[in-house]
Amino acid sequence: MSELRTLRVALLGAGSVGSQVARLLIEDAAELSARAGISIDLVGVAVRSLDAARDFDIPAALLTTDAHELVRRADVVIELIGGIEPARTLILEAIASGADVVTGNKALIAAHGAELFAAAARVGALISYEAAVAGAIPIIRPLRESLAGDRIERILAIVNGSTNFILDRMDRFGDTMEQAQKTAFELGFLEADPTLDVGGYDAAQKAAILARLAFHGEVPADSVYREGIEDITAEQIAAAAKAGCTIKLLAITERVSGAAGEGISTRVYPALIPREHPLASVHGGNNAVFVEAAAAGPLMFYGAGAGGVQTASAVLGDLVSAARRHVDGGPGQAVNAAAALPLLPFGEISTKYQISLTVIDRPGVLARIAGILAEGGVSVETVEQSVPEEGENGEAVAVLVIGTHTSREAAVQDTVASLRSSDAVKSVVSVLRFEGA
Amino acid sequence: MSELRTLRVALLGAGSVGSQVARLLIEDAAELSARAGISIDLVGVAVRSLDAARDFDIPAALLTTDAHELVRRADVVIELIGGIEPARTLILEAIASGADVVTGNKALIAAHGAELFAAAARVGALISYEAAVAGAIPIIRPLRESLAGDRIERILAIVNGSTNFILDRMDRFGDTMEQAQKTAFELGFLEADPTLDVGGYDAAQKAAILARLAFHGEVPADSVYREGIEDITAEQIAAAAKAGCTIKLLAITERVSGAAGEGISTRVYPALIPREHPLASVHGGNNAVFVEAAAAGPLMFYGAGAGGVQTASAVLGDLVSAARRHVDGGPGQAVNAAAALPLLPFGEISTKYQISLTVIDRPGVLARIAGILAEGGVSVETVEQSVPEEGENGEAVAVLVIGTHTSREAAVQDTVASLRSSDAVKSVVSVLRFEGA
Repeated sequence: MSELRTLRVALLGAGSVGSQVARLLIEDAAELSARAGISIDLVGVAVRSLDAARDFDIPAALLTTDAHELVRRADVVIELIGGIEPARTLILEAIASGADVVTGNKALIAAHGAELFAAAARVGALISYEAAVAGAIPIIRPLRESLAGDRIERILAIVNGSTNFILDRMDRFGDTMEQAQKTAFELGFLEADPTLDVGGYDAAQKAAILARLAFHGEVPADSVYREGIEDITAEQIAAAAKAGCTIKLLAITERVSGAAGEGISTRVYPALIPREHPLASVHGGNNAVFVEAAAAGPLMFYGAGAGGVQTASAVLGDLVSAARRHVDGGPGQAVNAAAALPLLPFGEISTKYQISLTVIDRPGVLARIAGILAEGGVSVETVEQSVPEEGENGEAVAVLVIGTHTSREAAVQDTVASLRSSDAVKSVVSVLRFEGA
Repeated sequence: MSELRTLRVALLGAGSVGSQVARLLIEDAAELSARAGISIDLVGVAVRSLDAARDFDIPAALLTTDAHELVRRADVVIELIGGIEPARTLILEAIASGADVVTGNKALIAAHGAELFAAAARVGALISYEAAVAGAIPIIRPLRESLAGDRIERILAIVNGSTNFILDRMDRFGDTMEQAQKTAFELGFLEADPTLDVGGYDAAQKAAILARLAFHGEVPADSVYREGIEDITAEQIAAAAKAGCTIKLLAITERVSGAAGEGISTRVYPALIPREHPLASVHGGNNAVFVEAAAAGPLMFYGAGAGGVQTASAVLGDLVSAARRHVDGGPGQAVNAAAALPLLPFGEISTKYQISLTVIDRPGVLARIAGILAEGGVSVETVEQSVPEEGENGEAVAVLVIGTHTSREAAVQDTVASLRSSDAVKSVVSVLRFEGA
């Protein structure tokens, strides 16, 4: 962790995640460097074949087939090869040469985490692996740091997008297991050999990593009890629905008071969970980690669990954080004046609006209001008028609720002022904005 | 960031959060120290009055009314006084004396963050403030570090539990604003002076902090456009429901392409959001932060937004993380052998089970199955038998679905083995476990 002028980054592997990491490191180099406070330079990408087709066209000058040589000239090594070897050896070489490591390799962390972390601790190197569990969802750092002062009781997690997609299809579309697997395969949610996903092996590796973080002890991946979803039938899903439940493949790790005293249980199996549980609403290929902590209470972290560019987000977050450590030894502060965008006045936003007015119910009023809106450049999507009621002066008064298309705030404010001063309008009851649509 | 043998911690303030932090620092001192890798010693608690009543009875020897003196003998200062002064001066004194700072003071970070972060950067001190936004929910660290390599497009956040409680009461129970505020006050969700919450001022401070983290630039709290929920009526809530929406007080910060080019808009107002949006399901006093990032896609962080012990979780997470920095300059690894719990065999877990059997439909079969379950110590909660159908040999075969009370896995496995070998049972179709109930 010395002071550097530039941070030399070696990328090992250029598959679906690796090629997205390469793309973002090249396209966003200036912004990432500004945020980290140090120039982040991609010095090479180790691949098996120089001329393989890739999602992103990595400049040939960066490509090499000699990963070992590349590791020796890096300050941070990003390992996205996957599997145990040669990933393990390359990471140990990186650590030995004083580099920090960023990896998304769940199999390796689950199987050899203890060895790698010990090697890193000896030389003060950092191993970050946010991408190893739940893709883009920040969960490693929250468990390792944000919840480090709490007592975690239980984690229930959907950490395998393929099986969640399959079970969700069965639950929501009535697919059989076979149909759902076929659709998952066609849409790219399932690999040609589905065993790792469907059999729960992938989830078990992630469960071991979560257990280690939650309970501060070694949890070998092969100590995790595991059942897959192969035998789940449409009948079981239907029966679960009748009972107010859905079936999800859960990675579970919890503190248990067993016959032999308190201990940790870590397991993966398809479980019945009540519809009203937040995990029941996790659809498609998404992931979610539900954490119960003694002080914090229940927490949930939700998002995309896989995908090249999504997982690349987690890798780059680890990289920028590792880079900042070389600058000031800390996580850095968020502000970087060079990269900062201006603060826009409120009138510059655009959204949809709901404008509620009371109007005197007489002929021509609606046309006049429509005219004011059109003049103001506010386009109407819906209009609803209430049944008129008798107002104070015996006039018939109606409530008019106008839904607009996306409009500029400034235009809406001007238009509302015009409406307010128009004698067609008795009062502007409210202006509400739509968000999240 | 020197190597220390013990970490001297000063706590400023012993209100609802501070007294919980004191309690956990005293009760869990050994475990927190083991996790941090350094002895964490609470050396004093600064209070206004030595004999005020508190949620936790802090030993008198720790109490002092001289916060300035206490700050001088600490390696980490936890500031939970709130408000601008004397909190600001005390934090600057802490930084000047080389201490790291942990604070939950949203008003101070929103108004004087730039000054405090600059002072800390000059001496390499760390200011952590996870507790300042969304209570126990880890959001500061995920935004500052995990998403540091991504491009955040928009944050929509429910960051004020009081107003969410009020709007949720109106939406789900048909309360008027007045009724809902009364209930919120009675249940402790609203202070005697509700202006800070109801007027959106608290949410605006948090919006400014989120904007700063998301967009890497200074966002003064008073630049945030703000509307409160005071004028929201039962009629508006009902109309929103009719339109498939609910109304939530949202803190919003987003990248906007305005007339003058790209910039940041940060604002707080009650907004209509569709029922199917994840934020619409955030009930009661809970908080949630919905983040849209270019690479990661949509993410949501959900949990308790306030409460003394919940917020204390965030404070202690920051403290342990700061402590680890003094040990090895990094976030530390999660494993601490001394504190680790044993891994329990799978048979030790307890949950509820759903056991599905096919049985020959003849008199006495149900009694025999019930007997096997009772012998195994597995208590039955529900039994459902399907209409019998004709099986292979012309026998009438029925499906029996048994729901159990909470039972031990080992007992269930033994019992299922007994069922399988009983001639009353044709086959064991499946054994599924309930979770999250």
